[in-house]
Amino acid sequence: MKTFFITSLACILLQLTVSAQRPPALNSPEVHPDHSITFRYFSRDAKQVSVSGEFLKKPQMMTKDTGGIWSVTVEPVQPDIYPYSFRVDSVQVADPNNTYVFANERFKRSIVDIPDEKPLVHSLQPVPHGTVSYRYYFSSSLQTTRRLLVYTPPGYRDSNKKYPVLYLIHGGSDTEETWTKVGKANLVADNLIAQGKAQPMIIVMPYGNVRPAPMPDFTRDVMNDIIPFVEQNYRVLSDSKHRAVAGFSVGGGQTLNIGLTNTNRFGYVCSYAPYTETEEFKKNFTNYSPDVKKLNDQLALFTISVGTEDFLYESVKKNIAMFEEKKIKVKPYIVAGGHTWMNCRLFLATSLQEIFK
Amino acid sequence: MKTFFITSLACILLQLTVSAQRPPALNSPEVHPDHSITFRYFSRDAKQVSVSGEFLKKPQMMTKDTGGIWSVTVEPVQPDIYPYSFRVDSVQVADPNNTYVFANERFKRSIVDIPDEKPLVHSLQPVPHGTVSYRYYFSSSLQTTRRLLVYTPPGYRDSNKKYPVLYLIHGGSDTEETWTKVGKANLVADNLIAQGKAQPMIIVMPYGNVRPAPMPDFTRDVMNDIIPFVEQNYRVLSDSKHRAVAGFSVGGGQTLNIGLTNTNRFGYVCSYAPYTETEEFKKNFTNYSPDVKKLNDQLALFTISVGTEDFLYESVKKNIAMFEEKKIKVKPYIVAGGHTWMNCRLFLATSLQEIFK
Repeated sequence: MKTFFITSLACILLQLTVSAQRPPALNSPEVHPDHSITFRYFSRDAKQVSVSGEFLKKPQMMTKDTGGIWSVTVEPVQPDIYPYSFRVDSVQVADPNNTYVFANERFKRSIVDIPDEKPLVHSLQPVPHGTVSYRYYFSSSLQTTRRLLVYTPPGYRDSNKKYPVLYLIHGGSDTEETWTKVGKANLVADNLIAQGKAQPMIIVMPYGNVRPAPMPDFTRDVMNDIIPFVEQNYRVLSDSKHRAVAGFSVGGGQTLNIGLTNTNRFGYVCSYAPYTETEEFKKNFTNYSPDVKKLNDQLALFTISVGTEDFLYESVKKNIAMFEEKKIKVKPYIVAGGHTWMNCRLFLATSLQEIFK
Repeated sequence: MKTFFITSLACILLQLTVSAQRPPALNSPEVHPDHSITFRYFSRDAKQVSVSGEFLKKPQMMTKDTGGIWSVTVEPVQPDIYPYSFRVDSVQVADPNNTYVFANERFKRSIVDIPDEKPLVHSLQPVPHGTVSYRYYFSSSLQTTRRLLVYTPPGYRDSNKKYPVLYLIHGGSDTEETWTKVGKANLVADNLIAQGKAQPMIIVMPYGNVRPAPMPDFTRDVMNDIIPFVEQNYRVLSDSKHRAVAGFSVGGGQTLNIGLTNTNRFGYVCSYAPYTETEEFKKNFTNYSPDVKKLNDQLALFTISVGTEDFLYESVKKNIAMFEEKKIKVKPYIVAGGHTWMNCRLFLATSLQEIFK
């Protein structure tokens, strides 16, 4: 696929290679029709190169050809989008030839998309597409300008309709881009809206990491800055039955804190594999004694989702038990799998079909 | 700055470190008030770690402390945004602790932003901000769904005004995100519009790499698919005096091909360090004999910019000479510096102050 481009750019690449010792362009990852995948990496000097990925039980060693190209073809993989990385001797690296990088603050990994014969819920399909907008807002709570992403559904610009809003929060070391770049939230929404399975809605993806301040500052940022910014800049329905909050991991914990302490504002609270070992969670939910009847009336939907192999599984089961013990109508979704974005996409797809209905 | 977060996430990180051998979070890059920068990288096993960056004449060796943290503080650097990377033994890597990645298809580098006391033209400032939207469009020319980014200026949503449009093309191995992520085109536009130095405009940033087809296919994509998509979806002025094209490197060559063969459609053609060793350029400009008077009447502005240390400098000088010899009114901008995005931002800031006036 890249042959022509390489040829046409031979001159420029030659010069760049000379000046920056740039390695050759490789086709990596190459996903085959049977869902096996070939990974390639160039190094003349490395002693050992392996690939690790969330589709592999353990790292797979790669072998070097005489030209310095390391490669391995892994067994067919269940269609989905997975993070992976290479280990070159002692160094973990993203795949230099893959544009799709996992948006994260701590690690650099790549993502590989294995399509199925039948499109998956996150696949780019020939349906009307919404728009993802990158916006800046000033947070008076945090006294700084922050960024958030806003998905508006197909048709938003051409109508005067008002829409419900989902506030969707990433995990602990993720960024405001992770829900679109890895979670494909925009494509999941496009597809479910096109199929009539989800209501057209706006999805707001803020940056949830508040440093060095403690987490309650993010709750204040959402309530006092983000919601007003969204309601001033977009045509939204602003009653609680048209406002939802969801999030993963640290963002799943933030979802519980934000949603359950503001049930007059959020009719839908969907928490994915929540991390709840935080001061804010302790403050909110140790000796938690809400007006249960009122809470259950206000909450049109309250779900907690987790995979049985998630390292937070036992903790999340305790959270669910705590809410159930208090007779709060929580709907648990216990599925297979770990603390992964494969599960995140699944959880989101489920929520999008349940909220605002 | 990251101390609290680390503390609050100690548990989750511990588990992830155990499971994925995740290294500690480091403050890297740390930009000091005097514009010196400390880079840090964790590796117990590496034998040698260095940092390379476009602010350095040669790589700087980093030294390891007893905890496995490699670091170096480089001399004060002229405020700007620069690409850099680490070399860990034989492996070039982006900085794992830096979220800001250079959007590119071939290499993984990080970017470091050195602010000045006085805000730079690309700095995030307290001015009204435009919106960057990620859009999909179907290219009938290429028979595939492609992505482009659209900057709409502050106030776009609140008015019924029509705006001029700049089509802005990235370099050869860049992506449709490079002009915003590295070039900060949206912030440059926000700042110049706020200062009254640039007209409020829409900036369309397509994905210029067309594979495996040859480059003329991108010209067709722009003319037959992208412009109609933009004009159907945005409030734009659609005469040639309100349409500009600009681009860098391979995109600078594409700019010449697209703009100069369609001067009835583009009143402004701004080419930055163009790469012109292409079949399309040869076809268009070998034996080039346009109606010069008509061309000069149609072109409100035609600029070619390049740095004297650019590896394409001699080639670009020949391009300029060729146009001058044919009495085409080209305005050359010869500046210091190389084939860099520091110069790209400068070239763009200059163009934004000249077009649509």
